[in-house]
Amino acid sequence: MPVDRYPAPELKDVPEDIRARIMEVQEKAGFVPNVFLALARRPAEWRAFFAYHDALMTPETAGRDSGLTKGDREMIVTTTSAANNCLYCVVAHGAILRIYEKKPLVADQVAVNYRKAGITPRQKAMLDFAMKVCLRSHEIDDGDFPPLHAQGFSDEDIWDIAAITAFFGLSNRIASFSNMMPNPEFYLMGRVPKQK
Amino acid sequence: MPVDRYPAPELKDVPEDIRARIMEVQEKAGFVPNVFLALARRPAEWRAFFAYHDALMTPETAGRDSGLTKGDREMIVTTTSAANNCLYCVVAHGAILRIYEKKPLVADQVAVNYRKAGITPRQKAMLDFAMKVCLRSHEIDDGDFPPLHAQGFSDEDIWDIAAITAFFGLSNRIASFSNMMPNPEFYLMGRVPKQK
Amino acid sequence: MPVDRYPAPELKDVPEDIRARIMEVQEKAGFVPNVFLALARRPAEWRAFFAYHDALMTPETAGRDSGLTKGDREMIVTTTSAANNCLYCVVAHGAILRIYEKKPLVADQVAVNYRKAGITPRQKAMLDFAMKVCLRSHEIDDGDFPPLHAQGFSDEDIWDIAAITAFFGLSNRIASFSNMMPNPEFYLMGRVPKQK
Amino acid sequence: MPVDRYPAPELKDVPEDIRARIMEVQEKAGFVPNVFLALARRPAEWRAFFAYHDALMTPETAGRDSGLTKGDREMIVTTTSAANNCLYCVVAHGAILRIYEKKPLVADQVAVNYRKAGITPRQKAMLDFAMKVCLRSHEIDDGDFPPLHAQGFSDEDIWDIAAITAFFGLSNRIASFSNMMPNPEFYLMGRVPKQK
Amino acid sequence: MPVDRYPAPELKDVPEDIRARIMEVQEKAGFVPNVFLALARRPAEWRAFFAYHDALMTPETAGRDSGLTKGDREMIVTTTSAANNCLYCVVAHGAILRIYEKKPLVADQVAVNYRKAGITPRQKAMLDFAMKVCLRSHEIDDGDFPPLHAQGFSDEDIWDIAAITAFFGLSNRIASFSNMMPNPEFYLMGRVPKQK
Amino acid sequence: MPVDRYPAPELKDVPEDIRARIMEVQEKAGFVPNVFLALARRPAEWRAFFAYHDALMTPETAGRDSGLTKGDREMIVTTTSAANNCLYCVVAHGAILRIYEKKPLVADQVAVNYRKAGITPRQKAMLDFAMKVCLRSHEIDDGDFPPLHAQGFSDEDIWDIAAITAFFGLSNRIASFSNMMPNPEFYLMGRVPKQK
Repeated sequence: MPVDRYPAPELKDVPEDIRARIMEVQEKAGFVPNVFLALARRPAEWRAFFAYHDALMTPETAGRDSGLTKGDREMIVTTTSAANNCLYCVVAHGAILRIYEKKPLVADQVAVNYRKAGITPRQKAMLDFAMKVCLRSHEIDDGDFPPLHAQGFSDEDIWDIAAITAFFGLSNRIASFSNMMPNPEFYLMGRVPKQK
Repeated sequence: MPVDRYPAPELKDVPEDIRARIMEVQEKAGFVPNVFLALARRPAEWRAFFAYHDALMTPETAGRDSGLTKGDREMIVTTTSAANNCLYCVVAHGAILRIYEKKPLVADQVAVNYRKAGITPRQKAMLDFAMKVCLRSHEIDDGDFPPLHAQGFSDEDIWDIAAITAFFGLSNRIASFSNMMPNPEFYLMGRVPKQK
Repeated sequence: MPVDRYPAPELKDVPEDIRARIMEVQEKAGFVPNVFLALARRPAEWRAFFAYHDALMTPETAGRDSGLTKGDREMIVTTTSAANNCLYCVVAHGAILRIYEKKPLVADQVAVNYRKAGITPRQKAMLDFAMKVCLRSHEIDDGDFPPLHAQGFSDEDIWDIAAITAFFGLSNRIASFSNMMPNPEFYLMGRVPKQK
Repeated sequence: MPVDRYPAPELKDVPEDIRARIMEVQEKAGFVPNVFLALARRPAEWRAFFAYHDALMTPETAGRDSGLTKGDREMIVTTTSAANNCLYCVVAHGAILRIYEKKPLVADQVAVNYRKAGITPRQKAMLDFAMKVCLRSHEIDDGDFPPLHAQGFSDEDIWDIAAITAFFGLSNRIASFSNMMPNPEFYLMGRVPKQK
Repeated sequence: MPVDRYPAPELKDVPEDIRARIMEVQEKAGFVPNVFLALARRPAEWRAFFAYHDALMTPETAGRDSGLTKGDREMIVTTTSAANNCLYCVVAHGAILRIYEKKPLVADQVAVNYRKAGITPRQKAMLDFAMKVCLRSHEIDDGDFPPLHAQGFSDEDIWDIAAITAFFGLSNRIASFSNMMPNPEFYLMGRVPKQK
Repeated sequence: MPVDRYPAPELKDVPEDIRARIMEVQEKAGFVPNVFLALARRPAEWRAFFAYHDALMTPETAGRDSGLTKGDREMIVTTTSAANNCLYCVVAHGAILRIYEKKPLVADQVAVNYRKAGITPRQKAMLDFAMKVCLRSHEIDDGDFPPLHAQGFSDEDIWDIAAITAFFGLSNRIASFSNMMPNPEFYLMGRVPKQK
């Protein structure tokens, strides 16, 4: 087992605003996802991370709409996090993906090979683009946009696809280098009917 | 020339807090780096981006010290942004790197091949690690830390190296996909004696 | 959805020996894993495939011992099949891995990044070697053996690691090209206490 | 020279059925290709390997036709084995390819760069597909089939192309890891008029 | 700093013909680019290198025309040398590129990501082809020529693109392995109005 | 078959000095290797190419010794040309390699996987270095030299290894892009006792 170089602080020791959010999450999810405490050892980064997260993942909190559904967003995260081999994000966001899409199999499918997943052609085009942003963003050019427009995505939706991919590329690298491990609860969420 | 899909807003149309920061930057730099206006089209993301940026790049604003110098930080950005082929970040942060390190050649050197650059063994070890975070973060393990400790980096400094790399990996992807172009001013900054 | 180019035969239409095995599996597992019917459209290949499978995965049926446990073998399959992005094998063998190892989390862990999995150092060394066989077998040389010997693997055990990796590399390619899909039952097996 | 970890058994020590086949091969070829003895140290694997081999390489023994010629099959083996850097298979199957195609130059051509080989457009399309199965089978989709149909390949022929590639991918990994060396006789076979 | 294994000879010690060329270059450029002295330690190679260089880079000295401009040629060198991570060639030829194209920004642009550079569609097509020659020349086929013809390049111009790329691929490898460093003068050339 | 874009000139049409060399080669080899005529369509490049070739491959003509044997040099060419998938160079130089080393099998071995070839540890170290120059020259550093020194190579010998690799990297790209095909005679040379 690797050394625990970056131990999470205890809940009582984190700043009040952070603790409030953490308790709210615990209330809703029934447990505290490890990322909330792991990043809290650096409060300024914690605040920026979750502000960015919320701006992209709950756009309504930023006062804007998005053509992506909640399930679309989690699907992008799960798929590109698998391409980056990030255990934390694949497991945690795969769980949320299952719940939002109400498809118990979809997270494992997109994590292994999204081309084989039971998803719509629109989602397939979305993931093709997300994977290009993830793996070779410098090759993106005008030719990458029409296939997305053809599936009904606006340029603003495409920004969302790219920005979500980019943000979780950050998250993937932080989680992997710092050895952040997913909570055991995530592995089963959304797989069985009554699982909260 | 690519289509301008994501036009920057005009300064007069951005929220007050963002405009204040932009005017402060303009004051100091003599121009507004394009990233400030380009991202301002989405204020919530702008605020999170710069909060994260500041937490990592000016740690004193977050009330903490760092074993990395300002030059070290810009060197990480320039080197890993080149690995991601991000024109904006290589040019803009290469300029700042030249200024902080007071070395007019160093940015071009690390962008092309940091192994040939006129940098210290400590900086070489720092960049070896940053490049691993950039390109294959999932392979990082306990064996990657002792060479950094041997150069005087603490585990907190190593977090800084990794987090800066991860954050600019996000920035690189956003800049490339949205076709953000560096201001012409950056190309020459720090190359000639009196250049501001 | 892709065209179903290679439809599986119906059970009643497959040769008697194949049907016998399939019914035995159904008896034990409660369902017929798709690979059994999918490959049955070519009986000679079916027989060779399962003979090879059994020679490696149940060595006692070939009259020999192995230093690998049942769990070790399924762990090799799950890990290398993920490297080959084979949905069928990751899902099906991940299920069996969970059951043999009695670890509901381990399959998802090794599929995303085996370096982060809750496995023994011996299993970590085993997977390092399996991944080299999977991805760059031509670079294997004498230097790859001592780390395995140090973990107690004999040269015969190492043959098992390599041969299982090679055999499932075949299986991965057949499953991906022919669009073989894992049975829904596999996704949940071994994750919940009473799941058969 | 590498250690000989996996010495081949002597002919007298192998099971009767295996010895019979080996003697038959020796009769026909004038020597025993090393793979026959090398794998015989594990009789159950030997039997499965050659059963699989025969089902794919001599489909008439499995009671079925194939749209691939003997030369086509060996060309797939030689080309994909070169992509896997497998010395044994390139040399041994390159020899057989020369004989079947009656082209003394073709094996070296496809091993180095099949795009430059003196082959038919039909064989070129066949090898394009085989290389995709070999190197990135998870990316195969419906779009890969029409170019093969256009050259007269049926879906069953395409299964043959894929399965041969997959089977020799197994063979390549076994041969490389176990240090199996091609018999000197193969290197010259099919290059000179009267060479048997 | 690396060991200086391959010290350049002093000007007084090089053969007369080589010295004459070097002094001519010094006259024109104001300094002696390091490649001239670094390679002079092996006069026969020096002569061949510069003969090849001149045949491609100043075709008029070989009594032939070329559809490539001086700027085009340096653009190919800068772009492909960056793909090969060659510090010497990116810096030295980037300088000459800026001067010939009279574009102070273009060298940094093509070195980081030529897709984002302020160049013509004709130059973009030229660089697409050069990069294929640089990185995967064995995949070039008839389909690569029409896009170049469409931009007005003749087959002879295409030979020039390929040969310049190939020659500087040689130069890149020599410079990197022997640790040849660009003269400081190059870094600033062509960036400021009056810079010689 | 690809279009013949770059037809070789007829012998009678090439400049006198080039024709003289070609006739000398024909005298010695019994045929004219295609590279001699293919490149003669551009006399200045022809002269530079062969001057460079001779400076590296017959160092005695440049008035210097080398610690590399003729066989060593051809082995470098064959191995690295295979890594570049260059049909012309693998076949032509593989032939010469067989003759110089008096080993009819060695060319096929190093072309497929030099780690399995019947060569000396000194040659193995030489090829390890050549492959690094071929594939990732920018990563070469001081640590690459001691293993070569330990095998008796001087720094000048190492220059030879690198320069031969670099020069044939040029040759490989020219041959592949221009569709240069090896003479049929090469395929058999050095394989059979009396073959000239």
